[in-house]
Amino acid sequence: MQDIVKAVHSWIIEAGEQIKDNLNKEDLLVETKSGRKDLVTEMDKATQDFLIHKIKTYNPDAKILGEENGLDQLADWSGQVFIIDPIDGTMNFVLEKENFCIMIAIYEEGKGRFGFVYNVMKNEFLWGGPEIGVFNNGKEIQAPKNIALSEGLVGLNSPMLIHNRHHETQVSDRSLGIRMTGCAGFELIALIKGQRAAYISHLAPWDYAPGGVLLETLGLKMANIAGEPLTLSGRELFVGGTPKAFDELMDLMNQ
Amino acid sequence: MQDIVKAVHSWIIEAGEQIKDNLNKEDLLVETKSGRKDLVTEMDKATQDFLIHKIKTYNPDAKILGEENGLDQLADWSGQVFIIDPIDGTMNFVLEKENFCIMIAIYEEGKGRFGFVYNVMKNEFLWGGPEIGVFNNGKEIQAPKNIALSEGLVGLNSPMLIHNRHHETQVSDRSLGIRMTGCAGFELIALIKGQRAAYISHLAPWDYAPGGVLLETLGLKMANIAGEPLTLSGRELFVGGTPKAFDELMDLMNQ
Repeated sequence: MQDIVKAVHSWIIEAGEQIKDNLNKEDLLVETKSGRKDLVTEMDKATQDFLIHKIKTYNPDAKILGEENGLDQLADWSGQVFIIDPIDGTMNFVLEKENFCIMIAIYEEGKGRFGFVYNVMKNEFLWGGPEIGVFNNGKEIQAPKNIALSEGLVGLNSPMLIHNRHHETQVSDRSLGIRMTGCAGFELIALIKGQRAAYISHLAPWDYAPGGVLLETLGLKMANIAGEPLTLSGRELFVGGTPKAFDELMDLMNQ
Repeated sequence: MQDIVKAVHSWIIEAGEQIKDNLNKEDLLVETKSGRKDLVTEMDKATQDFLIHKIKTYNPDAKILGEENGLDQLADWSGQVFIIDPIDGTMNFVLEKENFCIMIAIYEEGKGRFGFVYNVMKNEFLWGGPEIGVFNNGKEIQAPKNIALSEGLVGLNSPMLIHNRHHETQVSDRSLGIRMTGCAGFELIALIKGQRAAYISHLAPWDYAPGGVLLETLGLKMANIAGEPLTLSGRELFVGGTPKAFDELMDLMNQ
């Protein structure tokens, strides 16, 4: 394993242990951000700080894009960039105490080199990149079957079905079922493992970049609703899927 | 532990081992029932047969209500009745290879005495009843917090949000979020563990009776949409939740 992969892997496991130690803390500090359904906890912030400290010690020149603490924009993508989501699925972390992920992507000169997605309470860690392949814990995994929408499940969220702006109700009808898990990392792991035909959501770079590196490595597809590459800037409508399901979604959602 | 609890617990664990052994079988026989999204596999049938054999050996007079093989109606509820769902979440079993449950309820003279809900791949087994309390694996658990709809997640399914026949979109707005997992047992475990404020679905007796015994033991509430006791006959709109969330749903969904 390359040094950088080994290092980032170990930081994430260590951050996960800290989260597990604090999971049942009675007085966990929870605040809202953009609204009552958008939470941040002291553990999100502490985990991001911990990861940033590790990154800066490893490479003082690295740039960082992260969900918390005002690091959510980056103009210059030259050199090495770490994209961090300290706790993806904060609502699940607070209410379920499971089904949340720690995620990091490493980009170099604007290209995704490594991705790490760790479902903490399930001890399920997917990591890898185009140079090394994709691993589920220690085991290398292959591309999932190229299933059509009619042969698989689709992850999406409730406003999509309620407002139906891009024919999401037709997506639901054509697929074998809808799943909503409240965690982008969880959905991207499911897509990578072949448990989904597709995943659609409004995502920020730290939500999709880590899993995105892995899914593109395996030949799965992702783009914005226009079929264009995601911009790594701000929140976009993310469409990811098997090649077959992705093409169907582009037709169905843009009709 | 009472003999009958010990026995049923051990049958379910044994059935789970058989399912795990067959999980990656390439030529698993999958058939559709009422439509393309309603599946049954040879493992559903084999697991039900295995459990029925165990029950009949234990008590030849026991009556059985079960999802598969034409055992889905029962007129006479006198004596001991076993309600069986051999694989709850068959779509997940086929497509995800996880997130499915084996479930049994034991009724005596029409009253729920014991319930067993086993999330097989997660090794999470909730069981108990009014005489003995509720256990998560070996550990007794207490009633979850009586949270309101605005303080918790709600499990439901995609047709509910799409057709909005009972103001489900308002339920979504008022709650902290919607989850769809495709498995009644998974949702009932989540409710019992305090991970949900409520769960709403169209369910058959084998879907809700096993978890239902456990949730009523802990003071959680369940009923049909009119607030009446579920009939244990055919599919009904199931509404379950914390006492607070349940009362809110009765108002909100019947307005």
